[in-house]
Amino acid sequence: MKDLLLIGIGPGDPRQVTYEAVDALRQASVFFVLDKSGDKDELVHLRKAILQRYRPEGGYRLVQVADPARDGRAEDYLGAVQDWHRQRAALYAQLIEQEVGDGETGAFLLWGEPTLYDSTLRVLGLVRERGVALRLQVIPGISSVQALAARHQVPLNRVGEPLTVLPGRRLAGQGQIDNVLVMLDGQCAFARLGDPGLMIYWGAYLGTADEVLIAGPLQAVKAQILEVRERERARKGWIMDSYLLRREL
Amino acid sequence: MKDLLLIGIGPGDPRQVTYEAVDALRQASVFFVLDKSGDKDELVHLRKAILQRYRPEGGYRLVQVADPARDGRAEDYLGAVQDWHRQRAALYAQLIEQEVGDGETGAFLLWGEPTLYDSTLRVLGLVRERGVALRLQVIPGISSVQALAARHQVPLNRVGEPLTVLPGRRLAGQGQIDNVLVMLDGQCAFARLGDPGLMIYWGAYLGTADEVLIAGPLQAVKAQILEVRERERARKGWIMDSYLLRREL
Ligand SMILES: C[S@@+](CC[C@H](N)C(=O)[O-])C[C@H]1O[C@@H](n2cnc3c(N)ncnc32)[C@H](O)[C@@H]1O
Ligand SMILES: C[S@@+](CC[C@H](N)C(=O)[O-])C[C@H]1O[C@@H](n2cnc3c(N)ncnc32)[C@H](O)[C@@H]1O
Repeated sequence: MKDLLLIGIGPGDPRQVTYEAVDALRQASVFFVLDKSGDKDELVHLRKAILQRYRPEGGYRLVQVADPARDGRAEDYLGAVQDWHRQRAALYAQLIEQEVGDGETGAFLLWGEPTLYDSTLRVLGLVRERGVALRLQVIPGISSVQALAARHQVPLNRVGEPLTVLPGRRLAGQGQIDNVLVMLDGQCAFARLGDPGLMIYWGAYLGTADEVLIAGPLQAVKAQILEVRERERARKGWIMDSYLLRREL
Repeated sequence: MKDLLLIGIGPGDPRQVTYEAVDALRQASVFFVLDKSGDKDELVHLRKAILQRYRPEGGYRLVQVADPARDGRAEDYLGAVQDWHRQRAALYAQLIEQEVGDGETGAFLLWGEPTLYDSTLRVLGLVRERGVALRLQVIPGISSVQALAARHQVPLNRVGEPLTVLPGRRLAGQGQIDNVLVMLDGQCAFARLGDPGLMIYWGAYLGTADEVLIAGPLQAVKAQILEVRERERARKGWIMDSYLLRREL
């Protein structure tokens, strides 16, 4: 039986971590840092900064491995994602078997909230299906969704209304937009909405020193968001942004 | 200019509070505890326990006032809520003027995440409209939504799918249920869904010593949830519960 902690570490600010998460951090003997290889070294660095802050005395191992790449051009999006998850499960199973010894605890440091648009739980489900017995614990973290609302000082929902959280690729097909929070939108789906009644609250690199916020009527500010987003992406080599769309009453 | 902190304190477990929230707690001179009067004394008590834990040396004031009651039987739900918010704004404006002195900082300790189904931000917007100048800071907290997913070890969404968060009264009208998180459901709207393909992940008093979790196919477990919910509500005099509904593929 392998003990694993899935620890939500918030959107980037080491102070936006809970006491529960830090207690968990302090229990782990080995941390798995699995990222898409490429240009987001800063995200690995931010995780190491959290470890240095809360485990200054060291005494843990860091296992840093490049995640297999997903076929981004596949026609069948879901199928490609499933293949990718299976490949990751094979890798994770091997790493867990090798690295988490008897009486040890392994941990994943996960951005934001571990159950929101994060596939680690799902991949570990596949690891179990491969016959590796796991005992899991999931520790919630502040999501980028919450950091966005806090920085703009806007409620995520209005009285009695639903909040919908969705990936950028689903925005065009979303019928009614009352309160819609969009993540994972590399294509800037907001820019293709013509509705004059929408407000947007946009934020990038939330919780980090590079944080940028823009808010206003969508049609009035969308060109500015596109410009700032492209400038920052070019400057840093990567971007993480999300936004809330809301129809004004 | 009055300085106010809106501090998210998580769903009930004092360890599910962030370092940022505790830093904020330590800055405040006066805490406003405004609750519906009635049987939820335990919620006031939990807040005091958080203060005792993170401000053990005291040195702050606690202003505890019963919130005006909302007309729960009004035909016009939104209108009744708006009236209620206006009454609360009048009260809050007065309390803030009286209690937050020069150079002092006031704070509200808010359950879970301050921007999710919490009207404090909105009421403070009305306070501003009454002419009270406010400088706000919002500090995110772990929502009951996140505690629910963590305890059940389920992702809030599946790959590429949206997550919808809604109040119980909106469930019956919700067309497609892929991943729906229901809060504020005193009427047990889940029990009236006949769909045989739904899974439910239900939790009450999340993050507290009384936490109860039930999960399974909705039709198989709904009677059990109704029974446990009624028993716990009767025993404690109040209940806070929420649940995730998901259609199995
Ligand atoms: C794979 S999802 C992970 C979400 C994460 N579990 C959370 O709760 O924030 C990555 C997406 O989250 C959003 N995101 C994550 N961190 C962010 C940040 N610091 N600022 C803005 N958006 C962020 C972006 O939309 C990004 O495409
Ligand atoms: C007025 S809303 C406040 C939500 C809060 N801002 C949050 O983020 O959790 C109250 C509703 O939240 C849910 N809730 C809050 N705390 C809970 C807990 N500890 N366990 C289960 N549900 C909870 C219930 O659905 C309750 O009706």
